[in-house]
Amino acid sequence: MPSYKAPVDDTLFLLKDVFDFDRYGNLPRFAEAPIDVVEAVLSEAGKFAEKVLQPLNRSGDEEGCTRDSSGNVATPEGFKEAYKAYVEGGWVGLAGDPAYGGQGLPHFLAVALSEYVIAANLSFAMYPGLTNGAAAALWVHGDDALKRTYLPKMTTGEWTGTMNLTEPHCGTDLGLIKTKAVRQGDGSFAITGQKIFISAGEHDMAENIIHLVIARIEGAPAGTKGISLFLAPKFLVNADGSLGARNAVVCGSIEHKMGIHGNSTAVLNYDGAKAWLIGEENRGLNAMFVMMNAARLGVAVQGLGLSEVAYQNAAAYAKDRLQGRSLTGAKEPGKPADPIIVHPDVRRMLLEIRAFNEAARALMVWVALSADEALESPDPAAKRAADDRIGLLTPIIKGVFTDVGFANAVKAQQVLGGHGYIAQSGMEQFVRDARITMIYEGANGVQALDLVGRKLPKDGGRAVTAFFGEVSAFLAENKGDAALAPYLAPVKAALGKLQQATMWLMQNGMRNPDNAGAASHDYMHLFGLTALAFMWARIAKAVLARQAKGKSNEALDSKLALAKFFNARMLPEASAHLARLSSGAETLMALPAAAF
Amino acid sequence: MPSYKAPVDDTLFLLKDVFDFDRYGNLPRFAEAPIDVVEAVLSEAGKFAEKVLQPLNRSGDEEGCTRDSSGNVATPEGFKEAYKAYVEGGWVGLAGDPAYGGQGLPHFLAVALSEYVIAANLSFAMYPGLTNGAAAALWVHGDDALKRTYLPKMTTGEWTGTMNLTEPHCGTDLGLIKTKAVRQGDGSFAITGQKIFISAGEHDMAENIIHLVIARIEGAPAGTKGISLFLAPKFLVNADGSLGARNAVVCGSIEHKMGIHGNSTAVLNYDGAKAWLIGEENRGLNAMFVMMNAARLGVAVQGLGLSEVAYQNAAAYAKDRLQGRSLTGAKEPGKPADPIIVHPDVRRMLLEIRAFNEAARALMVWVALSADEALESPDPAAKRAADDRIGLLTPIIKGVFTDVGFANAVKAQQVLGGHGYIAQSGMEQFVRDARITMIYEGANGVQALDLVGRKLPKDGGRAVTAFFGEVSAFLAENKGDAALAPYLAPVKAALGKLQQATMWLMQNGMRNPDNAGAASHDYMHLFGLTALAFMWARIAKAVLARQAKGKSNEALDSKLALAKFFNARMLPEASAHLARLSSGAETLMALPAAAF
Repeated sequence: MPSYKAPVDDTLFLLKDVFDFDRYGNLPRFAEAPIDVVEAVLSEAGKFAEKVLQPLNRSGDEEGCTRDSSGNVATPEGFKEAYKAYVEGGWVGLAGDPAYGGQGLPHFLAVALSEYVIAANLSFAMYPGLTNGAAAALWVHGDDALKRTYLPKMTTGEWTGTMNLTEPHCGTDLGLIKTKAVRQGDGSFAITGQKIFISAGEHDMAENIIHLVIARIEGAPAGTKGISLFLAPKFLVNADGSLGARNAVVCGSIEHKMGIHGNSTAVLNYDGAKAWLIGEENRGLNAMFVMMNAARLGVAVQGLGLSEVAYQNAAAYAKDRLQGRSLTGAKEPGKPADPIIVHPDVRRMLLEIRAFNEAARALMVWVALSADEALESPDPAAKRAADDRIGLLTPIIKGVFTDVGFANAVKAQQVLGGHGYIAQSGMEQFVRDARITMIYEGANGVQALDLVGRKLPKDGGRAVTAFFGEVSAFLAENKGDAALAPYLAPVKAALGKLQQATMWLMQNGMRNPDNAGAASHDYMHLFGLTALAFMWARIAKAVLARQAKGKSNEALDSKLALAKFFNARMLPEASAHLARLSSGAETLMALPAAAF
Repeated sequence: MPSYKAPVDDTLFLLKDVFDFDRYGNLPRFAEAPIDVVEAVLSEAGKFAEKVLQPLNRSGDEEGCTRDSSGNVATPEGFKEAYKAYVEGGWVGLAGDPAYGGQGLPHFLAVALSEYVIAANLSFAMYPGLTNGAAAALWVHGDDALKRTYLPKMTTGEWTGTMNLTEPHCGTDLGLIKTKAVRQGDGSFAITGQKIFISAGEHDMAENIIHLVIARIEGAPAGTKGISLFLAPKFLVNADGSLGARNAVVCGSIEHKMGIHGNSTAVLNYDGAKAWLIGEENRGLNAMFVMMNAARLGVAVQGLGLSEVAYQNAAAYAKDRLQGRSLTGAKEPGKPADPIIVHPDVRRMLLEIRAFNEAARALMVWVALSADEALESPDPAAKRAADDRIGLLTPIIKGVFTDVGFANAVKAQQVLGGHGYIAQSGMEQFVRDARITMIYEGANGVQALDLVGRKLPKDGGRAVTAFFGEVSAFLAENKGDAALAPYLAPVKAALGKLQQATMWLMQNGMRNPDNAGAASHDYMHLFGLTALAFMWARIAKAVLARQAKGKSNEALDSKLALAKFFNARMLPEASAHLARLSSGAETLMALPAAAF
């Protein structure tokens, strides 16, 4: 059976040593969260993940969700109780607005601890994750009456939220949606249509479920400019806040799918369901993007979380399993065989995972701290820069963390050989669960296109120019540091390739948009590699600083070895990305569609 | 629901145009198999795969195998009947020895059609696949009495075979096995021990199951030099060939695993089971290697077969699914959206799969024809060269075809977006089924080590030198061909990198074996890429020859576009492999085991 230990120490190292936690002291929410509070919160969250959520992961996968003939869905045994404890622990509302019952702690804290919750039990984590996303969209775009009615219980997690976009004939291309909203006399709307793939769409863990639904108001323009966002609760809410009648939205079926069995993926049938407009008419996608961007960051963390738990279990197996001998002579001559960790290729798989995880965690923490800056910084320039950084990095970390997270789950499974293929080991569940992260909240191809098509050219390339500037400034600032030099050179080389690729895109993507599309996947991954290399240089700097003060330890020292591994063994892929993308769209577009 | 069309035309093109089928006319078995017979056999096999086996693939996955309390295992509905038809069709014994009831057709034919059977239904294909492997080991190493008793019904497939190596504490390191064989007075042995992960280990499709089991005879030397191979039937066979008493080998459980649910993966408990020695005492691994090498080639074909069926279904979806518009303007303005095949990144995924599949099929056909040459060539030099080629390429195609085959199944699934994650689409089954191919018959890390540790240095590097010679000779022969030149240059460049990597291994692997281990994965994939590029050049030559004669067609013309895509978009990975492997073992071995 798999196990999990939340990497609290690593998160704290990143906050304190790499990202200089104190410099965020000017943000209001940080007043409530000095580092010892942060430490206590992360540590408690880690324990909850390890002791309450992780033990339900395998059983949740095996049991799955079940729907009865009236459309009620039961979550796996133990989920309901665990969710109740999660709500009571205040975890859902950690970063929620205090005006609606939230704890008002910084957002980075919610992100950091979500890694632990996800790693312990992705299916479970999705319920509060979607609730937070729905609450955020309502908080930004809802009117006061709606917020007063729904936000308090969504903030605490007593009611959960969902995101209803996809229909049978459309997912990515939301301009095609058919679900209709008909204006009622009382200011509400009646929604009719079918939504599919609704995560956490129906379940027994909360007394109400608040669906955020996109639909087309009668007479609205065609395409994406005629889409509005609505709130449709499972149970209508009376004026006194008590629950009223069941709304006309029913779970028609739940999907039989590859993984995340503990999360119900519902088909929701709306038959004149009562709903209220969120934000402006026909501006629904705009409002939904608040939720989608939050969700994309959340999915990126899913890639990391699964990669981490998969690593931990593979490493434990590799240190324990006796099989064969080291190529350089027995390392444990007293035992019948050496542990398989002696084999270079087993180490390769483990190190590829670990060297990703630690740098990805750094990138996640940086983006999460940026989210707080973007919301609260008193300095308009810093606020804007943080917002730009998040916009630019969101598709990159969604695409890269989940592509790599899945590949890492596969590698970790490989370390166990045949045992990894057996359900009991838990490794194959990590693979099946990780697979969805590459698909939902915008398939990774859509992320790559969002990056090259929108995020790069936005505001004249301001965000990407700023990113290059930050990396270059770091390189310049540390130029004289001989100990750090070996960690800087690879970043410089990678940045050069990324800039070359960016130039290629500017020159060729405008001329022929298919060149941009053809380059998008490799560009996204080249960007990701460069950002991860930058993180390794920052981590190395922090470790060297600790060593200089005589305050390092074995765990920190090992990061220097990981940084070297990353640069020698993972960064070479940057050249391949550049070569591929520079080859242009021609070989991709040559075949007529019928020849496929 | 997924579908499948056997690529019979492509196989025939490879045989006739690329590999000059007529030049094998000097091999005795080919007298029975002129090209029109080959065509008829492949075409019939394709139909059987498409119409009988493919429809059982999804249902077999959903139902799985079930074991009752006495240890009997039922295969999914329809498997039994399909297997009966398969045996009656003579498919199992197609290349079997006519002395034992086989049809004596060339081995390449059995390999070529196995691709179709595998693509249609991997779980099913494993039953006859293992039977053929067991029969081959018995044919090579068994004594006449054993062969007379067991081979006829194994050749026809009326009895199936298995391969019993793994025990709970050892898989790769067979020197650790504990299963014991005790000599009986009558020349037989009594086997006691537990074997796990036995594919097709117990089922209801054949009246007898012939287990090939490795065990240690009392008093045998420790390690791999004390292992002998035995034949233990499920039912003992009377002198008249009828079935006698049930032998003392029982299925203790079947595994709950990620995929291949239609194949029973059994724990077999031997409790003094009656068994007979195959080959010499303590030389069991030697005898088992006949079966393992056949099985490794078979697993390579599994990687290709699943990649092909996944491609076909993804391509069909991409041509059908309307979503979004082409970046260069609507391609189907009359429809609500364009089919997603207009998007460069969707094409990228499909082309990466297809450009692998067609070259991999060429490599498979080449190796399969070599198998016939190695067995039957009247020319000792050709025979030896063919044997060398198979030995060298076996770990490469096992490792590369299955690593890439799995990655391709994942890419194909990605093309379907959320629909690919739902069981009904069948795409996620391809991923789950393909995953085992990277693990069984020697995990791919073991293949890579076999390549660099055994196959490369064997006979002073004779096989690899010959391979380089064959590629170089092809380049030299076609040097003046201007039309072919663009397809030759990339092969030359890749060969240069492979030779550089080989030199690096010779210089550094001897000095420090960890360097060889650390390079093995990248070396195997660099070799695979080079071999595939060589295949594309040979295919391009054949297509150009057809075009010159005015005898090409659209399907053949498209191969030139695929070759260009391969060279521009897939071959750049060769440089990354070379860079990684040349970085040596240092960064892999730096961390102490405890730091993982």
